[in-house]
Amino acid sequence: MKYCCYCRAVLIYEIPADDNRHRYICQSCDTIHYQNPKIVAGCIPVWEDKILLCKRAIEPRYGYWTLPAGFMELGETSLEAGIRETLEEANARVDVEELFAVFSLPHVGQVYMMFRSRLIDLNFSPGAESLDVKLFKEADIPWNELAFTTIRASLRCYFEDIKQGAFSLHTGDIVKTEAGYDFVPTLI
Amino acid sequence: MKYCCYCRAVLIYEIPADDNRHRYICQSCDTIHYQNPKIVAGCIPVWEDKILLCKRAIEPRYGYWTLPAGFMELGETSLEAGIRETLEEANARVDVEELFAVFSLPHVGQVYMMFRSRLIDLNFSPGAESLDVKLFKEADIPWNELAFTTIRASLRCYFEDIKQGAFSLHTGDIVKTEAGYDFVPTLI
Repeated sequence: MKYCCYCRAVLIYEIPADDNRHRYICQSCDTIHYQNPKIVAGCIPVWEDKILLCKRAIEPRYGYWTLPAGFMELGETSLEAGIRETLEEANARVDVEELFAVFSLPHVGQVYMMFRSRLIDLNFSPGAESLDVKLFKEADIPWNELAFTTIRASLRCYFEDIKQGAFSLHTGDIVKTEAGYDFVPTLI
Repeated sequence: MKYCCYCRAVLIYEIPADDNRHRYICQSCDTIHYQNPKIVAGCIPVWEDKILLCKRAIEPRYGYWTLPAGFMELGETSLEAGIRETLEEANARVDVEELFAVFSLPHVGQVYMMFRSRLIDLNFSPGAESLDVKLFKEADIPWNELAFTTIRASLRCYFEDIKQGAFSLHTGDIVKTEAGYDFVPTLI
């Protein structure tokens, strides 16, 4: 970020008065250009003992499998965002049951919010951002071809809850390690 | 938003190829300037049967009471953000117990995440953004002097759970009505 998007002046990068972090500041119109994490909202669409996954037709992670999810937009609720992403990526209609996972990804400035949901019907098909859309039983989940650690963590939590016989909210963080990324559940 | 913050060119506002929403687009460097909701993270700091509230020393809602909460920053988790805001606004240290409320505010592009937490000690005091910081029993909560509908909803959910004898996650939306703002819990 180099120029003010309101007045075109050159930005400086320093700590504003009454703040404790560096921000991009316009010296001409005094606007402080804050940057904040984004929300990725999505669904775990369930049909009987199967989960709907989408094969990505876009980068990053082209060709890998994911749950339908994407950036929440202005003007919508997080639940509406999860339902919309499921419709856009899988042409699938869902009834949402509850918020199932809230994961922070501090290294990329994202928070994932995944909703447990039931597929209303089997009339799903690949949306513009998907190569394929398929239902998977637990034994058939392509664990080594999943797109993101958030997706792996969401699916693991889901199948663990199924075995426990009860669903609960899962919170935690995806942290960068030497080997890649790990899911660290919140231990309180 | 009028100018590209990377190359200074004039932005156009139209629907990009492969999209379905208007965005600010730079015709010179092709950057699409997405705008997305922000997360407000905070705590419900509890000491015995009392809740810590802060009297705002800043606009909006100067002089009204709030729970410690503020915009989540890049590089932190939502839980870290809630703890940091509690320290900044009330000089209070908390042990977080669990994520208690997730409320969408589509009219302002925000998602509130409130954590139920225990005050570690009574060494709290007003931070730079607070005029006063005080513990309130339920009967003493200044319901008509609360800063935001999110705060009222968080406190109502908390005291209802206390009466029920069990805590659960509360999800819902703050919606604009003719009379002001209402909390609408997610009914699924």
